[in-house]
Amino acid sequence: MPESTQSLRALLQRTLHEEIPLSRVIGIRVAEVTPDSVTLAAPLDANINHKCTVFGGSLYSVAVLTGWGLIYTRLQALALDAHIVIHDSSIKYNRPVSADFTACCRIDTDKAFARFLEAYRRRGRARITLKVTIPDARGEPAVVFLGRYVIHTRS
Amino acid sequence: MPESTQSLRALLQRTLHEEIPLSRVIGIRVAEVTPDSVTLAAPLDANINHKCTVFGGSLYSVAVLTGWGLIYTRLQALALDAHIVIHDSSIKYNRPVSADFTACCRIDTDKAFARFLEAYRRRGRARITLKVTIPDARGEPAVVFLGRYVIHTRS
Repeated sequence: MPESTQSLRALLQRTLHEEIPLSRVIGIRVAEVTPDSVTLAAPLDANINHKCTVFGGSLYSVAVLTGWGLIYTRLQALALDAHIVIHDSSIKYNRPVSADFTACCRIDTDKAFARFLEAYRRRGRARITLKVTIPDARGEPAVVFLGRYVIHTRS
Repeated sequence: MPESTQSLRALLQRTLHEEIPLSRVIGIRVAEVTPDSVTLAAPLDANINHKCTVFGGSLYSVAVLTGWGLIYTRLQALALDAHIVIHDSSIKYNRPVSADFTACCRIDTDKAFARFLEAYRRRGRARITLKVTIPDARGEPAVVFLGRYVIHTRS
């Protein structure tokens, strides 16, 4: 039975905190889940460096979990259960982040995701590349992350 | 006065823990500093996920700080003071890491580093790409990280 975006938000929050203890330490909170997007939020204070900006490793960690969360909530909404792992990724830091921040992963078209699901259903394994952005105060991307994720059936 | 690799090891450990509090949380320890390499170590337990392997964001965080540490100790050995920031990077996860681990950044040839220092001395700004590997139990690279770092004069 498809779950509501509200219950998916709570499920994702619980799953992240239970399955990746570090996500609690860096203060990750699920800000929003929609059918097409996931937004995670994290505070400056738990992730600060001596320049009073967010440590690059924290920005990466929140970004990689945002993409993971998008796949997770979409699979949950379809009652599909799979392992989701990051295969490779790149990240570009356009400018420092010096406040509490959010990371957003949005699917603009369902085409790529439909192909991804079809490959998974056929072969029990599929990969997809997702983009995650961390906006600055004006909404411009301070950080851009591209992650290639693999899903496979649980053995 | 150039510092010994032993005092550089202690200096790097102190600097990481003071300047990036999260490095303490994820248990980063400076394992070794040589004139050509920096090796950081981190434990599985602080970085574990539900699959009992190391969270990809932790592997990234240790890798990015290993490259940072190599530049930092080299600059310190030359009594040079600069801001060191990560500009962009990529990471490939060849296989899961399921034990305490180390990350190593090694300079194979001094040529690129010499050019980097020359550019910094001339323009007060320079960039360099460094490779960091996290070996598995057999010494094969479980994770390969490439980071482009920028140094610039402190304003």
